[in-house]
Amino acid sequence: MKKEQLIIFDTTLRDGEQSPGASMSRDDKLRIARQLERMRVDVIEAGFAAASNGDFDAVRSIAETIKESTVCSLARANENDIRRAGEAVRPAARGRIHTFIATSPIHMEKKLRMTPDEVVAQAVKAVGWAREYTDDVEFSAEDAGRSGIDFLCRIFEEVIRAGAKTINVPDTVGYNVPEQYAATLRTLIERVPNSDRVIWSVHCHNDLGLAVSNSLAAVMAGARQVECTINGLGERAGNASLEEIVMAVRTRADVFPVETRIDATQIVPASKLVSQVTGYPVQPNKAIVGANAFAHESGIHQDGVLKHRETYEIMRAEDVGWGANKLVLGKHSGRNAFRSRLQDLGIAIGSEEQLNHAFARFKELADKKHEIFDEDLHALMRDESVTPEAEHFRLIASRFHSETGEKPQAEITLTMDGSEKSTCAEGSGPVDAAFKAIESIVDSGCQLLLYSVNAITTGTDAQGEVTVRLARDGRVMDGQGADTDIIVASAKAYLNALNKLHGSARKLNPQV
Amino acid sequence: MKKEQLIIFDTTLRDGEQSPGASMSRDDKLRIARQLERMRVDVIEAGFAAASNGDFDAVRSIAETIKESTVCSLARANENDIRRAGEAVRPAARGRIHTFIATSPIHMEKKLRMTPDEVVAQAVKAVGWAREYTDDVEFSAEDAGRSGIDFLCRIFEEVIRAGAKTINVPDTVGYNVPEQYAATLRTLIERVPNSDRVIWSVHCHNDLGLAVSNSLAAVMAGARQVECTINGLGERAGNASLEEIVMAVRTRADVFPVETRIDATQIVPASKLVSQVTGYPVQPNKAIVGANAFAHESGIHQDGVLKHRETYEIMRAEDVGWGANKLVLGKHSGRNAFRSRLQDLGIAIGSEEQLNHAFARFKELADKKHEIFDEDLHALMRDESVTPEAEHFRLIASRFHSETGEKPQAEITLTMDGSEKSTCAEGSGPVDAAFKAIESIVDSGCQLLLYSVNAITTGTDAQGEVTVRLARDGRVMDGQGADTDIIVASAKAYLNALNKLHGSARKLNPQV
Repeated sequence: MKKEQLIIFDTTLRDGEQSPGASMSRDDKLRIARQLERMRVDVIEAGFAAASNGDFDAVRSIAETIKESTVCSLARANENDIRRAGEAVRPAARGRIHTFIATSPIHMEKKLRMTPDEVVAQAVKAVGWAREYTDDVEFSAEDAGRSGIDFLCRIFEEVIRAGAKTINVPDTVGYNVPEQYAATLRTLIERVPNSDRVIWSVHCHNDLGLAVSNSLAAVMAGARQVECTINGLGERAGNASLEEIVMAVRTRADVFPVETRIDATQIVPASKLVSQVTGYPVQPNKAIVGANAFAHESGIHQDGVLKHRETYEIMRAEDVGWGANKLVLGKHSGRNAFRSRLQDLGIAIGSEEQLNHAFARFKELADKKHEIFDEDLHALMRDESVTPEAEHFRLIASRFHSETGEKPQAEITLTMDGSEKSTCAEGSGPVDAAFKAIESIVDSGCQLLLYSVNAITTGTDAQGEVTVRLARDGRVMDGQGADTDIIVASAKAYLNALNKLHGSARKLNPQV
Repeated sequence: MKKEQLIIFDTTLRDGEQSPGASMSRDDKLRIARQLERMRVDVIEAGFAAASNGDFDAVRSIAETIKESTVCSLARANENDIRRAGEAVRPAARGRIHTFIATSPIHMEKKLRMTPDEVVAQAVKAVGWAREYTDDVEFSAEDAGRSGIDFLCRIFEEVIRAGAKTINVPDTVGYNVPEQYAATLRTLIERVPNSDRVIWSVHCHNDLGLAVSNSLAAVMAGARQVECTINGLGERAGNASLEEIVMAVRTRADVFPVETRIDATQIVPASKLVSQVTGYPVQPNKAIVGANAFAHESGIHQDGVLKHRETYEIMRAEDVGWGANKLVLGKHSGRNAFRSRLQDLGIAIGSEEQLNHAFARFKELADKKHEIFDEDLHALMRDESVTPEAEHFRLIASRFHSETGEKPQAEITLTMDGSEKSTCAEGSGPVDAAFKAIESIVDSGCQLLLYSVNAITTGTDAQGEVTVRLARDGRVMDGQGADTDIIVASAKAYLNALNKLHGSARKLNPQV
């Protein structure tokens, strides 16, 4: 059977980034975009260019860098958003503009305050503006999952006539169930004139745990693009997981009439990178990319499994990239080995001076830690890529002491806007003491919402990667810090979150 | 429309416990069983009584304690397993025996080395033995997802004739897709004689991310029992999530012809308890129980959401128990308040002496931490419930020091089999130093596989709950430790894992 292609549209950098606190720097986004390209993702939704100047720059940098994948920017259905998106993706080898407007009664009435006729007219105008920049225009009917089918047919007919090439039917609030969602797609494809000239796309949210199965049911009904994210990242319960979509289609090739272009061996490295950049852990019992997903990877050796792997395994761990994280560098690795590994990982090095500086930091780490893995290099280079102007607060030195029967103490020295300050504090533990010492200097008024630590690699000398979520005035920001000393990593993460809150303005989070 | 009842069969304590390292003590299991009863779960699969004496005791204790839910033990299709299961559930108000045998060609040939005729004969005998103990007998065809439909019809016809009341059709390896799995159920219900006299059940694994949707598709096809776990815990990528099944059926009452008896407000407390007991984190973007599942809970206040909650919310956070974790106790809370809160949480207190001891520990904690939440009490009482004989290694005192430019140091004093030992070590961080100090005393030869920390509650004085996964000779064990000092919590977790490895024998993990 000749398979049709299923287009994989990754929105980790747009919908994924809208997860609370998961904001990414331009360099973070570039690194992830390179990994998505390496994985052979068809379309990378790089951001929402009109959200802020930072978002615009990130989309534009990705458009300048990525050669193999289409680079897409989201835009609301207004002229300014679309012109910003058009400018941002202009340098791309293949650029796409993705414009959207809400079509459900509740959204049109309560949020847009527009009549259905006005919504259709606006959508058609939006597609027209987008076509001034590219032929590759995608249109989404926000909250399609709760919209009337007749109205959807009408607006899709009009935007196809206006030149939209991809029609997306998002289940914005994750309310759909597979059979019904598939029926919606089937009806649209049957009833909308010229439906065979466009690609039908789905974008599902996971509020009821059905994002992947809704997407797959829609594929059986004719959808040929799935919008998804690495690790199922995204607002609330997230989006459909790229890794589950790809591996379901591949493992059950007997059922699905489609195939993807994805290089599945890049899935686990992509998962680890996204988890590390966002600080969002992947639960061990997550399909495909969870630490337990493949039993023999977790150190379990059961009779049945070892004797006949196919008895309990329907996929092979190595096919999705488990075990690819080999020991790469150590104390005696030279500058060339270091540079070459960074290049393999797609990490750009600006200048020889930057390389020298990074290599010196690498040597320091290798003194503390015998084996340096890819994840350690990613963490190191993230620290390295912070520009001084974005580092309003910076940790200079620290001292911690705790002892049974005494109050834990921390002494912290940091620079604030260039000037050095130092203070001591006690706390219920050394992390609490460190945070109190920092607050006694900066007095930020932030509230701590979340604190978590994951070892970047295994072994007792692993670096701890700490995520701290702070809130102030209704804004939420995650900070990350990595160090072989968990208390130092905690202080770094706290300061990283403060720097992000300090540097960034509130931004728009469109819901598609 | 009069709804039929969907029976919720929770296997957190059996299939969930088979997750690598997630072994639970009898007291852990009892605490979770009480929470499942409070949530009005219909059937609690309490364990696999024949696996070990410890498993037998746990199933029996749960059978003695739980009044409202049916208590079930798993048993392979042999006489010894079934008699052990029968003895273990005998004290239950309602007891069930769940017996299984593999029916797929690959399992019959490679694992069982039995002919199909022998498998049918064994299954019928097994149901007969089970019926000597109870009328409530469930039969599972292991790996039904990859078994021939004719053979399934044959074996199910025979076991129904032998008296099985529930027929379970597990997708043991998570290979099925919804439409096809639903078709299997539909065919079985049509073709198997007397199919209307039994309850058809499904048990789905999540290897392709489809466990929930496969279960729900089967419900549309006539299944009336779903086997599931809290947080989707379970081997590899886990089982179908109880919370997603329950809330999908409830939120989409317009689609599903069934309703459950579950008190959904107990879902989040159950999720937190299971996560705490097993050390398995719940990822923030997990449906229903993830920290981000409800946007306004994560501190985000967006225009649309606050003005019209229904614009983006299909469920209310409070309906699944978010926000139920109110501040309960503090420094000035008395002994009666403490006792009464423990009773509310279903934590059994053995004697006045135990209560006094626990109350003293509570006061110590309240000195370090202003606000004591339910999660803190659970952590406290878990520490409290460790019996001295199970505590081969015990932390007595510790001292940590780290400072920029120096090697972090740890001094650890512990008792090993009653005698006190003390030592100092350096490491790449204070946690590494603590683990090295412990190893220089106990010399366990263990390998550290995983290290993670989650704050039990929010705020800078939160307790850190550390999970450490150790491996030795192919065995894997998780240990947990909680303390306001993260380094102390780490040392406790390490010793907890060592104690578990020391105390327990290798056990059987049946795959259903």
